[in-house]
Amino acid sequence: MFVREMSEEECIALVSAGRLARLACSKDDQPYVVPIWYAYAGKFLYAFSMPGRKIEWMRANPRVCVQIDEISDRQHWRSVIVIGRYQELPDSAQWHHECLHAWSLLKKYPYWWEPGGLKPLPQPVVGASPHLFYSIHIDEMTGRTAVAEGGI
Amino acid sequence: MFVREMSEEECIALVSAGRLARLACSKDDQPYVVPIWYAYAGKFLYAFSMPGRKIEWMRANPRVCVQIDEISDRQHWRSVIVIGRYQELPDSAQWHHECLHAWSLLKKYPYWWEPGGLKPLPQPVVGASPHLFYSIHIDEMTGRTAVAEGGI
Repeated sequence: MFVREMSEEECIALVSAGRLARLACSKDDQPYVVPIWYAYAGKFLYAFSMPGRKIEWMRANPRVCVQIDEISDRQHWRSVIVIGRYQELPDSAQWHHECLHAWSLLKKYPYWWEPGGLKPLPQPVVGASPHLFYSIHIDEMTGRTAVAEGGI
Repeated sequence: MFVREMSEEECIALVSAGRLARLACSKDDQPYVVPIWYAYAGKFLYAFSMPGRKIEWMRANPRVCVQIDEISDRQHWRSVIVIGRYQELPDSAQWHHECLHAWSLLKKYPYWWEPGGLKPLPQPVVGASPHLFYSIHIDEMTGRTAVAEGGI
């Protein structure tokens, strides 16, 4: 087994197919990483969240890293790392279109609900819940994959 | 479905049973997150790595965050977050015992090999490869889990 860099197309294919990612943010050089559900479109990842530590930290420092993978075992795995920037999408006039776009993408999936809340919560409705939408602009995307002996 | 905090015992059980984690480090407030294989003992996670970006960054800033989970679907998941500190374990007189301890823990598992190298590599041998061992001292460990309606 060895490891090779993934092509841009391979990275996009993995990110497109995936729903679950790990999002890392940082405050005063203390990193923090949590699982998120996301949707991918163009140069963006879309997600939403309850207010909390990661949202506060990303508001203060929008530089993030998102990691998406398919890991079966030591011999079979692919992992993509996105370096990007957080952008909150409040349901205001300026962001209304982006907010609806994020919602339209995320609601397609049964697993859009993020493992983030702490209280019993109903399904959120746009504009009627404490949840907020955000996007991650993809500045850089790289990936690595395991290659079996004799493979490519 | 709602979400509750996990007890310390539940967190330890998840971390003990797990092998795969996501490790986030940070440099100049740019976070970076990668998958790692680890072993857990006492107040430490143990792992090893090829030299590379994350090792350089953790040498410069030992503050890290490690996320370990079991995620089946929206209704069934548990996630633990460790805030900790990186300590490299060079095979020197000072760290020889810790280094052997890390190795003795990691070699038990068939998946100790980290998804990190970039070249065809033989299995590393302690003291005879570019791989290095490190520990993460667990300063803080918290967890959340989904709870089905009517569950606890």
